[in-house]
Amino acid sequence: MSIERFEKQLAFILEADKEKNIFRQTHITGYARSENDAEHAWHMAMMIYLLKEYANEEFDVAKAMMMALIHDIVEIDAGDTYAYDDAALATQKDREDKAADRIFGLLPDDQSEHLKSLFYEFEAGDSAEAKFAKVMDNFQPLLLNDLNGGRDWREHNVCKSRVIKRQDKSKNGSEFIWKHTRKIIDDNVENGNIIDDIL
Amino acid sequence: MSIERFEKQLAFILEADKEKNIFRQTHITGYARSENDAEHAWHMAMMIYLLKEYANEEFDVAKAMMMALIHDIVEIDAGDTYAYDDAALATQKDREDKAADRIFGLLPDDQSEHLKSLFYEFEAGDSAEAKFAKVMDNFQPLLLNDLNGGRDWREHNVCKSRVIKRQDKSKNGSEFIWKHTRKIIDDNVENGNIIDDIL
Repeated sequence: MSIERFEKQLAFILEADKEKNIFRQTHITGYARSENDAEHAWHMAMMIYLLKEYANEEFDVAKAMMMALIHDIVEIDAGDTYAYDDAALATQKDREDKAADRIFGLLPDDQSEHLKSLFYEFEAGDSAEAKFAKVMDNFQPLLLNDLNGGRDWREHNVCKSRVIKRQDKSKNGSEFIWKHTRKIIDDNVENGNIIDDIL
Repeated sequence: MSIERFEKQLAFILEADKEKNIFRQTHITGYARSENDAEHAWHMAMMIYLLKEYANEEFDVAKAMMMALIHDIVEIDAGDTYAYDDAALATQKDREDKAADRIFGLLPDDQSEHLKSLFYEFEAGDSAEAKFAKVMDNFQPLLLNDLNGGRDWREHNVCKSRVIKRQDKSKNGSEFIWKHTRKIIDDNVENGNIIDDIL
């Protein structure tokens, strides 16, 4: 246990604090203000623990929770990329890779490698942990948006095909939650909050 | 997998969203604004995972992380009780018990009991998970406060004996972090941010 190692860990922990200033498109309950990345990640991690019975496969809960807690940390440098903004999506990968090198690089080497691998594992979405964490990354804002009367979708004139394209990977992690997601989408199409472009 | 069970879980998850509106005495980096409970819990859970090597005893990481994520949820009803506010501290237990019954009661019975037991286990601070989660509950605001030049202590005219009284349970969870805590306290006494009432 060296002080040098501990100080590197603290440098990362204090850098991570900046996630509290990265605001997303989603709004918290009551549409009072935008949600930030730290709040979103907190909510996701709690949901992973509470809803794990719906995962298609068994998974390592602590690993999936940590994946959720740090999955947006690159946005400290790269900013939040809205899921339906094509121009920003085109440069997202390059911006996020540079950010991952810098931010995870603050940690001692072993933890830097470990967190970077969790981050890229989440991005790839192939492991059981990543698949279920990704369900929560989609389902958490969907739930809030639905609770807020679909206003985030209306403000951005979002079409059903885009929502489904974003959400349909949820079925890889949880068939059960994917079914519920489809119901929420259909209800919001019916209410006019999501534009029906699939005829 | 019943819809009724799932809807109870979602009711709790959406109720928990209100933690994003419970503001604490601690300020985020740069002293821009107060930190809220969800952000504090996110930071704590990440720290449990990253700093687990410093725990005095082995512990279940997912359990300790979930404990951290939900440990302040009762404040949705009971409000934040500042660690150095004696009047509020006197009624805290009663307010928080009622809140625990209502909020965890939104969940299906098995999860309601489980989360309530995690909450009270954290409060008691006896298990290995609770001891280490409590280290983070103390150390996370201490770190932020130190980074912000000790301004939260100065604004509240906090004395060294009070800071030590609050922080000294950290040694039950981590001797290593307790030593570092003592160093931060001593540095802030020396800089005049904490009043030296121990002569």
